[in-house]
Amino acid sequence: MDLNADLGEGFGVWRLGDDEALLDLVTSANVACGFHAGDPSTMRRICAAAAQRGVAVGAQVGYRDLAGFGRRHIAYEFGELRDDILYQLGALDAFCRPYRTRVRYLKPHGALYHAAACEEVQAAAVVAAIDDYDPELPLLCPPGSVLAQLAQGAGLRVVAEGFADRNYLPNGQLVPRTSPDALVTDPKEVARRAVHMATERAVVAVDGTVVSCPVESICLHGDSPGAVAAAELVRAALIDAGTTPAPFN
Amino acid sequence: MDLNADLGEGFGVWRLGDDEALLDLVTSANVACGFHAGDPSTMRRICAAAAQRGVAVGAQVGYRDLAGFGRRHIAYEFGELRDDILYQLGALDAFCRPYRTRVRYLKPHGALYHAAACEEVQAAAVVAAIDDYDPELPLLCPPGSVLAQLAQGAGLRVVAEGFADRNYLPNGQLVPRTSPDALVTDPKEVARRAVHMATERAVVAVDGTVVSCPVESICLHGDSPGAVAAAELVRAALIDAGTTPAPFN
Amino acid sequence: MDLNADLGEGFGVWRLGDDEALLDLVTSANVACGFHAGDPSTMRRICAAAAQRGVAVGAQVGYRDLAGFGRRHIAYEFGELRDDILYQLGALDAFCRPYRTRVRYLKPHGALYHAAACEEVQAAAVVAAIDDYDPELPLLCPPGSVLAQLAQGAGLRVVAEGFADRNYLPNGQLVPRTSPDALVTDPKEVARRAVHMATERAVVAVDGTVVSCPVESICLHGDSPGAVAAAELVRAALIDAGTTPAPFN
Amino acid sequence: MDLNADLGEGFGVWRLGDDEALLDLVTSANVACGFHAGDPSTMRRICAAAAQRGVAVGAQVGYRDLAGFGRRHIAYEFGELRDDILYQLGALDAFCRPYRTRVRYLKPHGALYHAAACEEVQAAAVVAAIDDYDPELPLLCPPGSVLAQLAQGAGLRVVAEGFADRNYLPNGQLVPRTSPDALVTDPKEVARRAVHMATERAVVAVDGTVVSCPVESICLHGDSPGAVAAAELVRAALIDAGTTPAPFN
Repeated sequence: MDLNADLGEGFGVWRLGDDEALLDLVTSANVACGFHAGDPSTMRRICAAAAQRGVAVGAQVGYRDLAGFGRRHIAYEFGELRDDILYQLGALDAFCRPYRTRVRYLKPHGALYHAAACEEVQAAAVVAAIDDYDPELPLLCPPGSVLAQLAQGAGLRVVAEGFADRNYLPNGQLVPRTSPDALVTDPKEVARRAVHMATERAVVAVDGTVVSCPVESICLHGDSPGAVAAAELVRAALIDAGTTPAPFN
Repeated sequence: MDLNADLGEGFGVWRLGDDEALLDLVTSANVACGFHAGDPSTMRRICAAAAQRGVAVGAQVGYRDLAGFGRRHIAYEFGELRDDILYQLGALDAFCRPYRTRVRYLKPHGALYHAAACEEVQAAAVVAAIDDYDPELPLLCPPGSVLAQLAQGAGLRVVAEGFADRNYLPNGQLVPRTSPDALVTDPKEVARRAVHMATERAVVAVDGTVVSCPVESICLHGDSPGAVAAAELVRAALIDAGTTPAPFN
Repeated sequence: MDLNADLGEGFGVWRLGDDEALLDLVTSANVACGFHAGDPSTMRRICAAAAQRGVAVGAQVGYRDLAGFGRRHIAYEFGELRDDILYQLGALDAFCRPYRTRVRYLKPHGALYHAAACEEVQAAAVVAAIDDYDPELPLLCPPGSVLAQLAQGAGLRVVAEGFADRNYLPNGQLVPRTSPDALVTDPKEVARRAVHMATERAVVAVDGTVVSCPVESICLHGDSPGAVAAAELVRAALIDAGTTPAPFN
Repeated sequence: MDLNADLGEGFGVWRLGDDEALLDLVTSANVACGFHAGDPSTMRRICAAAAQRGVAVGAQVGYRDLAGFGRRHIAYEFGELRDDILYQLGALDAFCRPYRTRVRYLKPHGALYHAAACEEVQAAAVVAAIDDYDPELPLLCPPGSVLAQLAQGAGLRVVAEGFADRNYLPNGQLVPRTSPDALVTDPKEVARRAVHMATERAVVAVDGTVVSCPVESICLHGDSPGAVAAAELVRAALIDAGTTPAPFN
């Protein structure tokens, strides 16, 4: 099982989250590429540290919106979004070169993640950017989403990700964040669910039924207090269960 | 002899110069990479048009300064500048991919062009970015500059450029822009000087002496009225003289 | 009747439209405030020229989106949008001071104009920004819009604007831009409609019926070829009809 | 004696320093205005909190350089810099309005602070911006600087600031940061020096001589670990010495 987390989400003098701690826990680093966060020197720092640890570098591409951290939906046209994504992809890849690695996957960030999961235009822009850059580049995204479907239709490799700290509906979808039981807050329970996902490719839904959860990567969060400790628990539990975390490729 | 010009210097709805006309005249396109000008969709448009015409794509990298068009000196530290350049290089290269080409050279823009010509820190940052990205990538810059010297010392391929519309001192340097006779304004005279550079690798200095001008590329300007007509004259004169323009590589 | 147009929509080296020509025609200048267009020195230039001509300065506030020229919808939260607008209002007003004038009204730009016309959250943000800055400041917007209603409810002065170059539905609303007959393209017909609006506060709808059009300002466009000539025709026709254009206050 | 500190130096999701703690200690808040830091909603938050506590709001204006936090020298032309400063001044003042206050002074930030202290062009731009906005607005800057001189010559009110945590030369200037004894690191010593400045308008220079230090405000730093504790010590020491901190006006 792969463990991914968002990294390098500072900008200039500003930092967000504990990049160094997370880099010791994850196997895939979703590196911000400069449009919603991530100045060039931060990108270099994360690429260097990831390469040193054998952590896979992924392009966490987002909207051009530093002020909103890429969390506000923007009604991009297809071509503009495709090009903003392609730009970020190339930029990040440049920072992999001095460390003898390259971008291993793409994962959309924030509002783009959510928009591409359900809007055809934005999903198609993500797919087109990957296709322009390197059709072999895997796409990390929610299983069953519009994005996953379009990407599969275009012949891209889609890597499904799951959330051990989110509750699931019986149909395999996430309980919406607006719902009071969207989150699983007990770190031990989160770790148990991660092991369940890793060993059985399954999750216990909110109604108690066991549903299939065919994910290849689990997303860890690092930007809240206690997040790093929770991520450590997940990693340790997976190792205890005999499923050493490793990049999905 | 290669003919280069700055292209894609618009941003969003804004345009600067007549990209399409210049693309039919030059053999190398210095494409703005998004920091001083050049949004991603403009970058794509220029790369596509250049590839179609066999025009070489170069990365015209600049300071992060849209408001100042990269024309204001910024006292960057070495690492920040290197990384801002590397970022732009990778971004532009991404737009070459769908058109089966790649970035063929790097040329600094505006205040960076001037700073790197005489400041060691900024020159070293340009050299380091090329070295990180691809040590085979040629650097287009003024001959004899600090940048040219550092680049040669680092084993990079340096391509010297000349200006047919600028007067030269007897020592082979340009007459400073602050001098009243900095510019050659008669288009026919500009064309004659271009042919002189191309056929003899020489230029007549302001004092009438003939000085060596060992350049491989002539820079054409496209952002003033009459610029395109003047560039057409240069190209026609070169062809008349039997030296068909071609990319330097 | 007031004539308004968007002005100062360049940024840095980039220009858009013929500001000087339009300043001689309009009575109200919608000045871009730096978020979608309009760098500080451009703002000063327009404020100075407007003050000199007795043209009223209005704050044309937009989304923080230089790359998209404020034309892409952004799903702002209420507080963020209110504060982005308040920021722009204060910034523009600063450039009125040296010319002994001040911001006389606010008009939303681009995607904000359209969003605030129908979305409560964005309309409320516009109203709140005006209320914070100066509850006496008039708001220029489409009559009957959500924005107009909220503003009137908050006790603001709402100035309705009409479009002499757009067709109207029998209900007094504009024919949507997606419709083939959205635009009135014959400049003479546009001028006739402007006079009709100015003298009768009425317009002939697409079905031939005469409908009420109680506007205090007519919006002229300046960013297309022929736009300035068309605006000249409108102004001349109004003067011929004895309704000399003047700012609405 | 006035106590000033830089506040609101975050941007979007990013924070820098402990604004709330500092707001309880200072009497003047240098609020970042959006160009080097300080998004509109942060500016509102600080203005509201300052107004509530009777803390004076000052415009901490900086270069347009979010990526460099305004710490890199930019070779602005006079007009561009004046206009960038005027823009920021107006923008901040807008956020004072809903809290029934206004901008009480201007203080340059970072590289602009240092450039304006010794470069005529940049100093003149600061002075011109204040003059355009409100010639009554005090300027907070180092005594004896080019900026102070130009401002006084232009009839502006100049408020000199001192640094209790910096060593001084016998000529009354600061020991340069490049010198090993530039900083006073012992918090108790810093507090003693603040009291000395407040009660005697004097400071003990590095050579042991007592030199005049006719400052009206002491600058506290808040962006390093322990900074808030040190600032608390200064404030407490001033109160113990019977010189309750208060805004300089």
